[in-house]
Amino acid sequence: MNALNRLAELFGKLPGIGPRQAKRFVYYLLQSPPAMRKEMAELIEGLSKEVRQCELCYRFYTTESSNSKRCAICANEARETESLMVVEKDVDIDAIERSGSYKGLYFVLGGIIPVLESKKGLARTKELLRAVDARKPKEIILALSLTTDGEHTSDQLRELLHPLAEKQSSKLSVLGRGLSTGSELEYADPETIKSALKGRG
Amino acid sequence: MNALNRLAELFGKLPGIGPRQAKRFVYYLLQSPPAMRKEMAELIEGLSKEVRQCELCYRFYTTESSNSKRCAICANEARETESLMVVEKDVDIDAIERSGSYKGLYFVLGGIIPVLESKKGLARTKELLRAVDARKPKEIILALSLTTDGEHTSDQLRELLHPLAEKQSSKLSVLGRGLSTGSELEYADPETIKSALKGRG
Amino acid sequence: MNALNRLAELFGKLPGIGPRQAKRFVYYLLQSPPAMRKEMAELIEGLSKEVRQCELCYRFYTTESSNSKRCAICANEARETESLMVVEKDVDIDAIERSGSYKGLYFVLGGIIPVLESKKGLARTKELLRAVDARKPKEIILALSLTTDGEHTSDQLRELLHPLAEKQSSKLSVLGRGLSTGSELEYADPETIKSALKGRG
Amino acid sequence: MNALNRLAELFGKLPGIGPRQAKRFVYYLLQSPPAMRKEMAELIEGLSKEVRQCELCYRFYTTESSNSKRCAICANEARETESLMVVEKDVDIDAIERSGSYKGLYFVLGGIIPVLESKKGLARTKELLRAVDARKPKEIILALSLTTDGEHTSDQLRELLHPLAEKQSSKLSVLGRGLSTGSELEYADPETIKSALKGRG
Repeated sequence: MNALNRLAELFGKLPGIGPRQAKRFVYYLLQSPPAMRKEMAELIEGLSKEVRQCELCYRFYTTESSNSKRCAICANEARETESLMVVEKDVDIDAIERSGSYKGLYFVLGGIIPVLESKKGLARTKELLRAVDARKPKEIILALSLTTDGEHTSDQLRELLHPLAEKQSSKLSVLGRGLSTGSELEYADPETIKSALKGRG
Repeated sequence: MNALNRLAELFGKLPGIGPRQAKRFVYYLLQSPPAMRKEMAELIEGLSKEVRQCELCYRFYTTESSNSKRCAICANEARETESLMVVEKDVDIDAIERSGSYKGLYFVLGGIIPVLESKKGLARTKELLRAVDARKPKEIILALSLTTDGEHTSDQLRELLHPLAEKQSSKLSVLGRGLSTGSELEYADPETIKSALKGRG
Repeated sequence: MNALNRLAELFGKLPGIGPRQAKRFVYYLLQSPPAMRKEMAELIEGLSKEVRQCELCYRFYTTESSNSKRCAICANEARETESLMVVEKDVDIDAIERSGSYKGLYFVLGGIIPVLESKKGLARTKELLRAVDARKPKEIILALSLTTDGEHTSDQLRELLHPLAEKQSSKLSVLGRGLSTGSELEYADPETIKSALKGRG
Repeated sequence: MNALNRLAELFGKLPGIGPRQAKRFVYYLLQSPPAMRKEMAELIEGLSKEVRQCELCYRFYTTESSNSKRCAICANEARETESLMVVEKDVDIDAIERSGSYKGLYFVLGGIIPVLESKKGLARTKELLRAVDARKPKEIILALSLTTDGEHTSDQLRELLHPLAEKQSSKLSVLGRGLSTGSELEYADPETIKSALKGRG
């Protein structure tokens, strides 16, 4: 296989990219200035050197943003250590931070606990137990997506964490449900309406 | 214009139907059993006779479902009269009822209060004031969609109802916000995350 | 079931309409002027009286557009009788007529010949054979869609008509293939490109 | 800006990629094996060294696929030199080659001639004139997409090439129009139907 096809093959592994778009990426790069290709290549290869995974929350961070073994959030002494929010993946942290309404710490699960047992093993559940044990947060917020897999993960984590949380008096909570921005009442499902009614104010 | 084109033109006025789909409706009916066409025609024409608008909540109802001047919900003595929920349109009531979590009464606004002044006049605001004045509910729940127009309507209604609500000690509330079923954290907007965090439990 | 729900059920049978949109149609009609509902009802019921099926081409037509037992096209002596175009359904004729480039006659098959034998029987194949036998066109144009079912129907019709066409020296043809308006070369399938190359000029 | 954000920014320049998907690419790479990142980086950077642009048709090719200054197609003596097909971009050649129905040579325009004058300059029109002058093909096939820009480019090229083509007796042709695979008659535009009728057989 020649270089163009092999590169298209690698691009085709990126999330959401099919073989044709992958090929278009290659042709786009071919017509880009060599300096751009050089920078992209260096950044990709540099990920190994410049990017670390936080020893506390398992989030990826660059050595530029933090020099310690901890990411900028975990290393920030102004963050409130009594709250620990469990999210599925790194980008979820970006979404929470954009809201500017959370000042606590995070734990990146790195995957969901799928409904089918056979797929198990991706989520860092042991590491989560260890983190909760070590950090003894006053509140553990399970911040999973409200998808089938996300809700299943939430249920499983609640069961998993319950004994430890009880022992060390940590409160276990989940994000509130209700109408989201853009929701039309007409199309809202019963569960969402129930929560929206309960949470009215 | 011949009958086929005229009927297609009328179907083209139905919400979400373009000229081509309207024409397909006509061809579909042409190939349907005459009995189906007859029943559909009779039901459409019968709407005037068999359907009334509730004098209390302005909801449409059939004379089959209620014999009085009030719809089945307003006529139902088991409903809690201390809550009045304001919705935009009839189908919104269906969505709330499906959730099985509301036992109070409704008021159908019949339209939204658009952001542009020039479009005003659709929502039954005077009738709403009159209904609140007459029924003196302990709580008025504004249950509008979380769209731009819905949120604007909610704000306007709150302002409109505030003096009267204060006078008769009615609580004014809105549906709770948060993550809806299906929401992915990664794509949730800051406002939704803020509410979801506030409403966690 | 009450009148509103029954009407929604009937609307839900129209092509492409789900239960929710059907219900919106009902609410839309409830809020429409009674005169519009009356006209729609009369037009729907009148379809039986005012619409006939052409005895030659099986197309539906209104008695307003033609008084005879034949539709306006079949009754039009200016149309060229030596060409007979076979289409799947009435709306296909509208598309051809919009192009203004065909002056011959039509035959509406009323369905396709599906790939799975078990579904057979919808297309008026016997009537087509009879029409070709009676009208002895110089050319029979098979104008089916280029979908799997359409192409299968085309193949089957070609086989079916071949002996008779040969006997009476009728030419059997199909619509030309090539790039359609909007086609992007990059996404064109090999078959289309092959035809486009062959048909270049 | 740190390395993660800068890489996301560069990925965001790839065709069809927004800032969020660009960020997902970065996180995907972070979790990929270092060997994959290394290979991708080397392939991207290597594009400059291993990829050349054909001096005849302006197509990109790897030094693996051809050692000369010409791409594998231009260097292939079995190709018919009397036909020259003008395409917009490299991937269009892939589509034509997949059809297996063209044995001539190509010329990659490298862009379209946009309807708005102000955007001019991308298409290699001077190089095309020079190529036609030098190679004197018997036929020049304009194989542009049937989009607004593609059709405009086709018209402009025809005008541009006409004097030279006339002088050296080159035939100027365009790809044939008609129904493409998947086309439904009902939705076909008049222009396509006209061509399909003309090209029937």
